[in-house]
Amino acid sequence: MSDTFDRLWAGLAPLGRDRTTGGYRRLSWTPVDAELRAWFAGEADARGMTVETDRNGNLWAWLGEPGPDAVVTGSHLDSVPNGGGFDGPLGVVSALAAVDELNRRGLRPRRPLAIVVFVEEEGARFGVPRLGSRLLTGAITADRARGLTDSDGVTWARAMADAGLDPDRMGADPDRLSRIGVFVELHIEQGRSLARHGAPVGVAATVWPHGRWRLDFSGQADHAGTTRIADRNDPMLPFAETVAAVRRAAVEHDAVATIGRVWLSPNTSNSIPSRVRAWLDARAPQEAALRAVVAGVDTAARLAAAQHGVSLSNFQESFFPRVDFPRDLCHRLAALVGGEDTPAPLLSTGAGHDAAILASAVPATMLFVRNPTGISHAPEERADPADCHAGVTALTEVLADLTDAKS
Amino acid sequence: MSDTFDRLWAGLAPLGRDRTTGGYRRLSWTPVDAELRAWFAGEADARGMTVETDRNGNLWAWLGEPGPDAVVTGSHLDSVPNGGGFDGPLGVVSALAAVDELNRRGLRPRRPLAIVVFVEEEGARFGVPRLGSRLLTGAITADRARGLTDSDGVTWARAMADAGLDPDRMGADPDRLSRIGVFVELHIEQGRSLARHGAPVGVAATVWPHGRWRLDFSGQADHAGTTRIADRNDPMLPFAETVAAVRRAAVEHDAVATIGRVWLSPNTSNSIPSRVRAWLDARAPQEAALRAVVAGVDTAARLAAAQHGVSLSNFQESFFPRVDFPRDLCHRLAALVGGEDTPAPLLSTGAGHDAAILASAVPATMLFVRNPTGISHAPEERADPADCHAGVTALTEVLADLTDAKS
Repeated sequence: MSDTFDRLWAGLAPLGRDRTTGGYRRLSWTPVDAELRAWFAGEADARGMTVETDRNGNLWAWLGEPGPDAVVTGSHLDSVPNGGGFDGPLGVVSALAAVDELNRRGLRPRRPLAIVVFVEEEGARFGVPRLGSRLLTGAITADRARGLTDSDGVTWARAMADAGLDPDRMGADPDRLSRIGVFVELHIEQGRSLARHGAPVGVAATVWPHGRWRLDFSGQADHAGTTRIADRNDPMLPFAETVAAVRRAAVEHDAVATIGRVWLSPNTSNSIPSRVRAWLDARAPQEAALRAVVAGVDTAARLAAAQHGVSLSNFQESFFPRVDFPRDLCHRLAALVGGEDTPAPLLSTGAGHDAAILASAVPATMLFVRNPTGISHAPEERADPADCHAGVTALTEVLADLTDAKS
Repeated sequence: MSDTFDRLWAGLAPLGRDRTTGGYRRLSWTPVDAELRAWFAGEADARGMTVETDRNGNLWAWLGEPGPDAVVTGSHLDSVPNGGGFDGPLGVVSALAAVDELNRRGLRPRRPLAIVVFVEEEGARFGVPRLGSRLLTGAITADRARGLTDSDGVTWARAMADAGLDPDRMGADPDRLSRIGVFVELHIEQGRSLARHGAPVGVAATVWPHGRWRLDFSGQADHAGTTRIADRNDPMLPFAETVAAVRRAAVEHDAVATIGRVWLSPNTSNSIPSRVRAWLDARAPQEAALRAVVAGVDTAARLAAAQHGVSLSNFQESFFPRVDFPRDLCHRLAALVGGEDTPAPLLSTGAGHDAAILASAVPATMLFVRNPTGISHAPEERADPADCHAGVTALTEVLADLTDAKS
């Protein structure tokens, strides 16, 4: 089993890797994305699986008939810019390795089994994360998705069409959803809960409510060398005060909140900016705490903006309510992974996942694999080989049980 | 006279203008830059002036023989991104209009007269302001200039070569400098001193010492949704505290200091940044105050970085000592512009100019034209037509006097 995993991992590892930083840049519908998709199709085909691309660009590899009541696993292959190699690919590689392991054990699934690769999970190119699963479930309309643009102004529809797909067919796909009996996504943990538990594999029970807000501070561009301090309406100042307010609000409400993306105009060192645009990412275990964080940030930002003669607009770009995966399913998986007496830990996470999107339509949950440092979305993201192998074993047990596989 | 100015101004106004914002984007060695250069060469040629391009890409239009002991005026045609239409072009258009006015008055210069258009004054494309005049005077080496890159990685040498110039010939040009007897640059004021004085035209006496520093805050990229606050090394936090420290230091030392340019990696909303790079622009009447501002910012930035487990490097990208234009020349011009009894105001400025670079090699000073709002480096930058016309009249008087023009 470990041989299979290691071989698959080695085949995937060079694609989209920056040799200098060691980080990955795997953006949807780029040449490296085409290589990743071809790699997956080739590996699935080699296992006798039938590969199809759905109307939204997600890839499906079927072992046997495509549904109904299928057990589906998988994850995504795209990354954030300069991201790690595990976030997404670990679930796809582990799924292929688990199919091999079922075979090696001579177990034949009695329910249809599929591996899915969701497109644009990170939202790193077109700005909306989990876009493939959202389109599938109808959580985003086809019209809105078609018009999303990357930083060069290329639309999602254009990029899909250039990849040979018909953007007019995009949208909710209830027929395809109706084939899914249960969805289980394996993913590297993006925190240190399992490290603290001392367990290689856990089961996700809850995804925190989370969202993204765009704050636009508009002031008056002017010459940096000649404009007296008293005459300035510099949006950088209230922006900076808002960064501090974000941290204070997160600590106060036991949440996490981040400003990780900023855009300035004109962004030249000898000009006072006319505009600073910042994106707030905020997440908390409960929605009340999350709303309190966002309200606290908004109040502080408005006060700071007014003090500096700067105007502010605050726009909610996205919001996801809390997701509780089905309790019975989680406990069943925890017992399968850890044993009846020592079930695997049940975890909650602040990260969004395709599984949380699918949970609105089908029974779904996740397996997490230990991340010793907790680091993710960075080149240093990693899992120990032994934990990756434990993840494949756990997923094999889960798939064997859910598909009622027999020798 | 006002007809000539208005006609020239109208011919130049559409080039590089953004119809939506009304701002200008005139970057060196771009297609619009080629249009601007062709426009200038055509207007100079129409006045019987001989146009040449020097080895560094600056344009010279000569009325009569090219030196020696020439009176040179002029400015630049490039802009910051989304800049105003006056910063630079006002000096070039006023110079052409002043040549027409000398003609109209039947005055013939008895010293050679030239109009110069310096290249890359703003540094908006290749990062080093006043590049053309620095190369001319040897204030920057040809080797360093050749290697400067724009945001796409195109070098200054490549861009010059693509424009048909030989980058191997670049560098200090003492022969050309030796032809200049005196340099007078007319420029829109980038502050409100003249508005406060109630005068349409003033004379620059001093350019404040100024410089640019690059601050690199390096932390640990990580997932915005899953990394606990206590586990973060987020460089955005000390950056934000530094923005506040910049303002405090500027106020304390009667200086101006600005962070107007920021670069983040990876700059995605669901990642804690690994790096925030910010550029500090600082200027003060005296060098001691400027050094105190920079030292205060550095101390605050280091403290904030250490508190957040973030490393900091602080690199001085450029530094310009105070320039005092020759006192006699300034007083002579003030009397010519305002009259012996009511001389034009003598001003100091925080803005760098080609005239301040040339002042290290030849007698130089500047005329400023009133800017009613003080706004510059923004689409709203403007001067009243009557003040522009007063600028042409003043420049005509100065050129007539300095060239000892006779009818």
